[in-house]
Amino acid sequence: MLHILQNQIVLNQQLDCRKLSQMVDVSKILKNVSENGDQAIINYMKEFDGVSVSSIPFPIGDFTPKEKSNNTELLQATAENIRKFHQRQFPASFTFVQKDGTCAEWKWRPIERVGIYVPGGRFSLVSSLLMNVIPAQVAGVKEIAVCTPPNKNGLPNASILNACKILSINEIYSVGGAQAIAALAYGTESISSVNKIVGPGNAYVAAAKQAVSSFVGVDMNAGPTEIVIIADENANPAYVAADLISQAEHDSEAIAILLTDSNKLAESVNKQIKIQIENLSTKEIVKKSFEKHGIIFLGKTISDCVKISNKIAPEHLSIQVKNTDIYLDQLIAGAIFLGDKSPIAWGDYWAGPNHTLPTGGHAKFRGPLNTMDFMVPYSIIDASSALDTSAEKVSNLAKLEGLNGHANSVDIRRKQ
Amino acid sequence: MLHILQNQIVLNQQLDCRKLSQMVDVSKILKNVSENGDQAIINYMKEFDGVSVSSIPFPIGDFTPKEKSNNTELLQATAENIRKFHQRQFPASFTFVQKDGTCAEWKWRPIERVGIYVPGGRFSLVSSLLMNVIPAQVAGVKEIAVCTPPNKNGLPNASILNACKILSINEIYSVGGAQAIAALAYGTESISSVNKIVGPGNAYVAAAKQAVSSFVGVDMNAGPTEIVIIADENANPAYVAADLISQAEHDSEAIAILLTDSNKLAESVNKQIKIQIENLSTKEIVKKSFEKHGIIFLGKTISDCVKISNKIAPEHLSIQVKNTDIYLDQLIAGAIFLGDKSPIAWGDYWAGPNHTLPTGGHAKFRGPLNTMDFMVPYSIIDASSALDTSAEKVSNLAKLEGLNGHANSVDIRRKQ
Repeated sequence: MLHILQNQIVLNQQLDCRKLSQMVDVSKILKNVSENGDQAIINYMKEFDGVSVSSIPFPIGDFTPKEKSNNTELLQATAENIRKFHQRQFPASFTFVQKDGTCAEWKWRPIERVGIYVPGGRFSLVSSLLMNVIPAQVAGVKEIAVCTPPNKNGLPNASILNACKILSINEIYSVGGAQAIAALAYGTESISSVNKIVGPGNAYVAAAKQAVSSFVGVDMNAGPTEIVIIADENANPAYVAADLISQAEHDSEAIAILLTDSNKLAESVNKQIKIQIENLSTKEIVKKSFEKHGIIFLGKTISDCVKISNKIAPEHLSIQVKNTDIYLDQLIAGAIFLGDKSPIAWGDYWAGPNHTLPTGGHAKFRGPLNTMDFMVPYSIIDASSALDTSAEKVSNLAKLEGLNGHANSVDIRRKQ
Repeated sequence: MLHILQNQIVLNQQLDCRKLSQMVDVSKILKNVSENGDQAIINYMKEFDGVSVSSIPFPIGDFTPKEKSNNTELLQATAENIRKFHQRQFPASFTFVQKDGTCAEWKWRPIERVGIYVPGGRFSLVSSLLMNVIPAQVAGVKEIAVCTPPNKNGLPNASILNACKILSINEIYSVGGAQAIAALAYGTESISSVNKIVGPGNAYVAAAKQAVSSFVGVDMNAGPTEIVIIADENANPAYVAADLISQAEHDSEAIAILLTDSNKLAESVNKQIKIQIENLSTKEIVKKSFEKHGIIFLGKTISDCVKISNKIAPEHLSIQVKNTDIYLDQLIAGAIFLGDKSPIAWGDYWAGPNHTLPTGGHAKFRGPLNTMDFMVPYSIIDASSALDTSAEKVSNLAKLEGLNGHANSVDIRRKQ
């Protein structure tokens, strides 16, 4: 099912697909919402969602989910895992006194108001809601507004509403797409603007987030999901195949790559893929995804495979080799799944770390969504105890740069 | 010298100037450098800098600064302060075991290769070099490449070279502007591409950083520098004036705002400004800056002033009131300068925290440049000890979202 390649140049070309995704133009939508507020949103709901409303639907309060969920306990259990892990990420403030007495503090505070986008689309991404809301709550964000596309009845998906209830979120707007991002960024009559917008979305949502990022914080522009598996002859081909499939079923643009030094494994994995997708509900998407972006690359050694993986810096990296310890400290990825008993799905839902991960090689410079993404550090400087000791030095440093007003602001305090 | 206002709406309009700065178009420069590498850079050096070279100047190794600096000791002392403070910011990795045995790690590693832009222009910003290089070194970044505009002789400013020597930086290119950012992002024959680009610059540099941020990390797009001073009748007008001037001398677009409840202070500050700028070498810039963006706002109470300041969320906030403690925990700013003995210049050079701070209200969602900006966190997940206990739950969570391939990747590991 997957193309088996031995040529790294071809692999590089295949990976270039990650840079080709074209930005869509959402400037009209942004302008319209910034100028016409709620009415623009209401018009887009009619145009894009086929939903007629006279005001922005604000479901909680007006509505409680009709569908009583059996999954509350399960969602509470996974929420607890996510919460505990993200609590450990809570950053430390500190006070540092330099030897001249200058007192410098480093403090963290939660962002005041955050907007969380939860996509509708093919699957109801309850886990996405959990993974964005919980770190914001752990950070101490006071106001959390959720936007998610409406069903035909104008309301959000019932599972999303149920999960919001479990998380005690009560500001939810059933508004989707670029218009939701515009509302969160500019504010409208019904939706107050936020300081930061997080959460995945389609190309329109991504383009809108990019456009408003000049004045609102955004998390990251996530591209198609990616998995790289590094496996040797000891790996179980059924597991490897299942992991590749689980990534490919997200989206026909998803990227699934196996790097191995074993030709035997490569062929067994392809056989297993055929067997496993036979009765899979997401078979057609998986086939399309493998067709477009699925690759098995045969390296000479596992070390070679590691080098290639690090060039990719994938979102998810699974390492299913005999001695993972040899390679662990060298690997560059958003999240690393250790050994053959750690399916990616474990990290998607259960393990605790965030499943919002850098794609497109961004793991080279940024990490998973985390508690600190919902907080802001700042510094506090008190020079009063050091002024006599160090004023001359600071003044001289300013003069070095020709900034005599700076020097004066120090000197004037010495003279008195 | 500063306009005294009592109307908050006017203040808001004045502040809107922060959003009006137009992005310049650098796409031609980016394309040219990405396609033609060194030759494009060499041509731009001739066109923009008036410097004729046959290859990219790579000063260290070829050249050592002719000018022996007397300031080495001073720079070493401030570097030590910066280093000590940023060492305290080094983030903690941890391992967390969930109650079912799922092992989740959170680890930090340095970014592999970082590019640092140091502007030339009016002042030789040695402090900017220190503030960007030192956190990268503290983070453990192995490769640091510095780009800075050439003098007429094709070499960087001698002070920058001297500071590089003190910091043991030996990869320096005298290339400036958008072409430097393009070289760092795409790589050329002589300059290898980097994973993240940091450092301030003019509108061309800022636009280039924004454009390449879809595939390279960038720090922040810093706008014109800002100061807000909250002061009451107890403040010393000479100090307040000196602080406002020190910000205004950076740039005619710099924003200097005094918020006070004391009409008497407002008038005394204006008198002091007149006196202090009389013989100042940067007088003309200060005057222009005050003319365009200087405001004194008279609030009814200091609490009102705090509210306005928080709407602005300024880069630098100086609080010169009788009881700073009452307000300290409410303030939103990049860096807060406490009391009347803490000139902003102390933080620009000496105190230890970074002087690269969020502008344009971005302090609402991001903090000062810090050690973590040069590191990447990632997670490691090991489910092997929890598979038997929790596989059913994880599988059910996947099924909730209709992701049956995900469920299968868990179930298949249980069956064996």
